[in-house]
Amino acid sequence: MGPGLNASEKAIEDAYQLGALIAKEGWTVLSGGRKIGVMDAVNRGAKSEGGLTVGIIAFADNENTSESVDIAIVTGMGSGRNNINILSSDVTVVIAESMGAGTSSEAALALKGKKHIILLNPSRIIQDFYVSIGKDLVSITQTPEETIKEIKKIL
Amino acid sequence: MGPGLNASEKAIEDAYQLGALIAKEGWTVLSGGRKIGVMDAVNRGAKSEGGLTVGIIAFADNENTSESVDIAIVTGMGSGRNNINILSSDVTVVIAESMGAGTSSEAALALKGKKHIILLNPSRIIQDFYVSIGKDLVSITQTPEETIKEIKKIL
Amino acid sequence: MGPGLNASEKAIEDAYQLGALIAKEGWTVLSGGRKIGVMDAVNRGAKSEGGLTVGIIAFADNENTSESVDIAIVTGMGSGRNNINILSSDVTVVIAESMGAGTSSEAALALKGKKHIILLNPSRIIQDFYVSIGKDLVSITQTPEETIKEIKKIL
Amino acid sequence: MGPGLNASEKAIEDAYQLGALIAKEGWTVLSGGRKIGVMDAVNRGAKSEGGLTVGIIAFADNENTSESVDIAIVTGMGSGRNNINILSSDVTVVIAESMGAGTSSEAALALKGKKHIILLNPSRIIQDFYVSIGKDLVSITQTPEETIKEIKKIL
Repeated sequence: MGPGLNASEKAIEDAYQLGALIAKEGWTVLSGGRKIGVMDAVNRGAKSEGGLTVGIIAFADNENTSESVDIAIVTGMGSGRNNINILSSDVTVVIAESMGAGTSSEAALALKGKKHIILLNPSRIIQDFYVSIGKDLVSITQTPEETIKEIKKIL
Repeated sequence: MGPGLNASEKAIEDAYQLGALIAKEGWTVLSGGRKIGVMDAVNRGAKSEGGLTVGIIAFADNENTSESVDIAIVTGMGSGRNNINILSSDVTVVIAESMGAGTSSEAALALKGKKHIILLNPSRIIQDFYVSIGKDLVSITQTPEETIKEIKKIL
Repeated sequence: MGPGLNASEKAIEDAYQLGALIAKEGWTVLSGGRKIGVMDAVNRGAKSEGGLTVGIIAFADNENTSESVDIAIVTGMGSGRNNINILSSDVTVVIAESMGAGTSSEAALALKGKKHIILLNPSRIIQDFYVSIGKDLVSITQTPEETIKEIKKIL
Repeated sequence: MGPGLNASEKAIEDAYQLGALIAKEGWTVLSGGRKIGVMDAVNRGAKSEGGLTVGIIAFADNENTSESVDIAIVTGMGSGRNNINILSSDVTVVIAESMGAGTSSEAALALKGKKHIILLNPSRIIQDFYVSIGKDLVSITQTPEETIKEIKKIL
């Protein structure tokens, strides 16, 4: 999970690499599926390695869906679909660089559902907040490679 | 919005008083509607002053609904209903004392929907996080009375 | 529940009268809340007798909400909100005159949730279908007055 | 789409064959994903031919998910998820033999969303109802093979 419109260049790069690494492991990428920002990048990365990609679409059609999404689940629920992203994932990775309100709700919903989250590159403020809310369910990583190792520990 | 199971005594007291003050203004209280914690308290407070109370219920029936909820909207959507709480509210007040992951997702969803939130009694960590995410959409208050004044400024 | 855009004059008249009679009983009207067709009429009828009205709004804002709705629950879920209408109601009355696909999904969701439906003025085709699907959960009435009597039997 | 618990033997057989034929075309099967009735059968059929299967799960976990579902989208929304099934599908095939209320709501939601439905083996009552509601959006077929031909016409 990560920012759309306001994603920083570093966030997009990390997302692309993470998608590629997830595909190499044979895992499926699930994201919000839009054709911008972190959502588009993680899917492009996964497809660059022949991975399978699922997008949980906020809108009622696929006009804004990334072309790198293989399976688009069209919810028409707006941000109401964020809880589905979480319930459907084994582990939630949050690209915390330039994180916005939507991503922040997904991280919180994951913790509410007692699911592990990994914060990739969080600021001190973001890290402190999620550790205070989620305690042992929160891991911090600095790179996509380290994130893959952390996922393996959790699964 | 505020904690259920793990609400502190102070959070429950503040919620009760806030509910009573909201009812005195002639406003409607909307909450998650459970019969525990902040959700129960704010509804009891509102009813003590003859107010109208609406609960957006996570479950598929009313077994866990507060008896102080007048109108129970039964969603059967779990935490997926949190976005409905936000979209249906003019202002979101977050009882930030002993705040948990569910409440935290509601605050984030409100900001995602460009809606004002008021944090009542947040810790430094919580305040810093939401101000960094939501900027001008975030107000901080210390008491239920001050919260009512802030709501009037926003409306 | 009943048609919006394509409601017949008779459907709108029946809805208005039904809303008025529900309000006289002191019950709350819950509908899809739009400002057209049966949804608008049932709310106007209820307000003419000082009743309380709740609208479960398909959109993410109140631009299309009937002015006769007191409490608007804004879901942003499109037709996904139809199941909430059903779960939140004690009895579902279907204005079956000029019934469309949306109303038809609500009647089916009610039966799926083991809830009673009353079909007001159904055609033979509509009646046969719902009786075949819902059996004892389906009642047929011809007038708003008869519908109120049937609701009392069910409650 | 089709019945779970009360599926007839013929409905299950048809679903299995349809799943196999869909997989042979290289298409993806999307269903409600439960491990009973038509939902389980269509997924088993698809996997028998190496197809890809997606399940939109009503529950908040995968305890009741068919083992033949590759990608489980966990919604925790009960019947509220039925609209997602429809929005995410290019064509909706309804196994109309022994059809129940849940399936009936999906057929109606498809028509509400202006999507084509194919009724496989409907009774006269079911056929008359959906043709009266959906008109040109409704096709009738008698066998899985004929259904595949009809899908090709629609796409």
